[in-house]
Amino acid sequence: MRGATKKSFGLVLASGLLLCAFWHTWRPRSSSRVSIWQKQGSAIKKLLEEKSQDSSKDYGDIPYHVKEEVARRLDQNTCVCEADKETVHLPFSHLLFPRVWAHDLHQALLDIDPDPDGTERHRAQQYNDFQIRTYTSADMLIVAEANSPLQYPTQGVEVRPLKTVIIPGLGVKEKPRSRHVVNLTATQGTFDVAATVDRVSITGAGEMSMALSSTHLSSLNRQLQFVTYTNTIFHPRTADTVQFASGEHQSFFTIKVGHRAIPKLYKSGSSGDYNISALVTIATKTFLRYDKLQDLIDSIRQYYPTVTIVIADDNEHPKPVTGPHIEHYIMPFGKGWFAGRNLAVSQVSTKYVLWVDDDFIFTASTKLEKMVDILERTRLDLVGGAVREVTGYSATFRHTISVEEGGEEGDCLHMRQDYHHDIEGFPNCVVADAVINFFMARTDKVRHVGFDPRLARRGHLEFFIDALGIMHIGSCSDVIIDHASKIKLPWGKTETEKNYERFRYSSSGQERNLHTELFYFKYRFKCMTSN
Amino acid sequence: MRGATKKSFGLVLASGLLLCAFWHTWRPRSSSRVSIWQKQGSAIKKLLEEKSQDSSKDYGDIPYHVKEEVARRLDQNTCVCEADKETVHLPFSHLLFPRVWAHDLHQALLDIDPDPDGTERHRAQQYNDFQIRTYTSADMLIVAEANSPLQYPTQGVEVRPLKTVIIPGLGVKEKPRSRHVVNLTATQGTFDVAATVDRVSITGAGEMSMALSSTHLSSLNRQLQFVTYTNTIFHPRTADTVQFASGEHQSFFTIKVGHRAIPKLYKSGSSGDYNISALVTIATKTFLRYDKLQDLIDSIRQYYPTVTIVIADDNEHPKPVTGPHIEHYIMPFGKGWFAGRNLAVSQVSTKYVLWVDDDFIFTASTKLEKMVDILERTRLDLVGGAVREVTGYSATFRHTISVEEGGEEGDCLHMRQDYHHDIEGFPNCVVADAVINFFMARTDKVRHVGFDPRLARRGHLEFFIDALGIMHIGSCSDVIIDHASKIKLPWGKTETEKNYERFRYSSSGQERNLHTELFYFKYRFKCMTSN
Repeated sequence: MRGATKKSFGLVLASGLLLCAFWHTWRPRSSSRVSIWQKQGSAIKKLLEEKSQDSSKDYGDIPYHVKEEVARRLDQNTCVCEADKETVHLPFSHLLFPRVWAHDLHQALLDIDPDPDGTERHRAQQYNDFQIRTYTSADMLIVAEANSPLQYPTQGVEVRPLKTVIIPGLGVKEKPRSRHVVNLTATQGTFDVAATVDRVSITGAGEMSMALSSTHLSSLNRQLQFVTYTNTIFHPRTADTVQFASGEHQSFFTIKVGHRAIPKLYKSGSSGDYNISALVTIATKTFLRYDKLQDLIDSIRQYYPTVTIVIADDNEHPKPVTGPHIEHYIMPFGKGWFAGRNLAVSQVSTKYVLWVDDDFIFTASTKLEKMVDILERTRLDLVGGAVREVTGYSATFRHTISVEEGGEEGDCLHMRQDYHHDIEGFPNCVVADAVINFFMARTDKVRHVGFDPRLARRGHLEFFIDALGIMHIGSCSDVIIDHASKIKLPWGKTETEKNYERFRYSSSGQERNLHTELFYFKYRFKCMTSN
Repeated sequence: MRGATKKSFGLVLASGLLLCAFWHTWRPRSSSRVSIWQKQGSAIKKLLEEKSQDSSKDYGDIPYHVKEEVARRLDQNTCVCEADKETVHLPFSHLLFPRVWAHDLHQALLDIDPDPDGTERHRAQQYNDFQIRTYTSADMLIVAEANSPLQYPTQGVEVRPLKTVIIPGLGVKEKPRSRHVVNLTATQGTFDVAATVDRVSITGAGEMSMALSSTHLSSLNRQLQFVTYTNTIFHPRTADTVQFASGEHQSFFTIKVGHRAIPKLYKSGSSGDYNISALVTIATKTFLRYDKLQDLIDSIRQYYPTVTIVIADDNEHPKPVTGPHIEHYIMPFGKGWFAGRNLAVSQVSTKYVLWVDDDFIFTASTKLEKMVDILERTRLDLVGGAVREVTGYSATFRHTISVEEGGEEGDCLHMRQDYHHDIEGFPNCVVADAVINFFMARTDKVRHVGFDPRLARRGHLEFFIDALGIMHIGSCSDVIIDHASKIKLPWGKTETEKNYERFRYSSSGQERNLHTELFYFKYRFKCMTSN
């Protein structure tokens, strides 16, 4: 009987322990429920917009005279795409005098889309979605009130999610009164104090609204030096607008809330001693040109015997491409140009990636060290070189790209053969928005931008449109690579060359439709100009 | 003679025209030279730092009492990684009571690196580089002065590169005086006015420093409503700090300069009617498990007959994997896990990508529509599901991740089996920082984060560390996929299963070194804790 009691007791104890363990590990946690619906605006935003409208009505009775040359530069949300008029009517005048041409994407849409109204509505809805998704209250217009007794930080306050930070710079400098009171209000966090000061009373510590008051202004200001903000509603990257008020004066400022960007550091060489194989991977895509690809590889090996070469290959009948430090990737047949580019860069594990076409040839002027040097020593993310044709002419294909706002119809894209400015310290280099297809870039940035795999046959400037606002781009004309000759008489071409040209240069309706869809829908352009 | 004269004249004319054409097209442009060296700080930053230090000395004589429970939450730049002490000494206690373990990465570095001091210095230098590269003056702390007569915008003013914008909200509300004067100064652009107002004189219009003055305060304020800023020094993404001053009062505010983010819009279905094949691509990587892969494909086809499946394959002897809507990519043998993941997602052309492992099985509970629905209707970028083992147990692998600052030694990484909060409107879903390897996500965001191709054998949470601050992550326990059984007795395993386990689970020193290098160097952590 005693043994049985012992056993039962043991079982009860063990069950009890197990239950405790389960409870400890898997207890239902009391969890707050948070709405993360797409939603626009907020009470504070409305309040600020009203204040802004009110103040702009001030002085409305004082007349003004428009200064045309400045006023015309302002963005009116009504951009247009205008082609140059043809002024010189000569044969080949367009070669001698490159003109700006314009392309109406909305019209192109009407030509190909069976339901253009539906597409327009769909685009507007997707764009609205995009704006809600990317908006934070850190983008909102806030105007600091004049003659306010409030002192507060207008930028630079950040806190990691669910963490606490002291709010720097808070103060109130008002005339003496019987009692000085300040209020702080937030919507995604709470206030408290890291230290208390005598003669200051605090209500709402640990809550989203806290009031501090004192009969002694200096004590209140001392207390304000210890005010903390704790983010309590989790979000990986957002902003909380704090209202700081005293009497009839209100001020607003933003606290950025979110995970900080984690660094992605790479080991690097030192200036003058760059280990190219450790720092750079060469990436290319090949199709129907194994002979040219082999020429490229042989030329690389003359100067960089151990640099890794990544090859994306979408041939119908792939052949092996072998050798030390060569990585060969086989894709579905004809998957395409940008898909191949995206694949190749996805495999790079060095800090920099060098893009080359499979019909380039390295020469003694193809000094990758120069490209690494400018990327290491400046804030550039990408630097293009020059591609030399058999004629001796070198192309850098520098372009500037700008986008003007066009309201609901979409924006206007403008591309020009031009560059922004020279670069101090690098005599043959300039800054631009797009360059030729021979460039070295920070691998992480290239992957961030990406090559849209929908661009199967052709694509170049699309990558640089995707790069706007992400990459700082340069171009150096003294890093030169040769282009295996394209100038061939028709009867001199090989069968593979003819196949290649047939595949690549045939302009299909499907391709034009894809271009329209990308530019009209994906980027939300209404028209574009280029020269 | 006359004919010869005509010819000569014609030649001269033609040459003249050609020269004009050349000149017009390729005239050397007068281009400004701009320095884009890595450089830290600026005159304004120093000035603001001094002001900040001065004001924090105010009230220094007033004593305070530290409020411990708040003060201890503040980031001291001295984070630590502490393991839980073992309190219950029972067999399997670590299973019943999961403890927090800690890993000292600096110590691990000392164990494997022949030159740890060199590595530490190198890391510090790369981190310094990263900080310079990512810093803009929009991050700088600015404090608004109390009782200043100046009114100005403290946030929300943006301009595209080289464009012009009206600065909203400028004003000066001071006591009457003989002459009212305000000054505006910038470093990356110039000021002007879009309209002029009588009785206001302007000096420096079109320059980086402009002064407005008037005997009539209301006229001056009217004039201030038309002040414009034009960015003149090109940068794709930066900020200009404007100094706005009157008499002894100064204020500072930021104008963000840069290309706006171009939208990347996709066509989408409407709620309740999602076309999964148009919206989602399924991506996976396979190695040594073609049988399981085929089971996966067959199970997908039962529910989604036309959805595209992208397969990255790094087998030594690849076999064909065919079928409609299947894309099969061959990689170099053993290139690796994360390289395969990065390859697969690089090929996706739909709005969303669904990641699955090659040994998962779709069931009637694997409702992709649910995942699309939450991604369409909230701001989530990624949503994980649940993986059901043969025992019936479903895992969601939800984790929270936080990073604490640790000063020069590096930061502290903390990972916990936990989640942040429930999601309103989605009863079985929560927000977390990491989830299980069955998830749907916005393709562009996944590519932005990327899978580091250096992680050859193992990797999971590294993707989510890279995602911090980039992706908003959720997890829904009601979208379930089955996991082809892993629980097999040793004598029941096939040869391929044994090979797979040997390849995958053998823990090599090389792999541990890679882990240390990534966490210590790439992410700049000094230690980590996890449970």
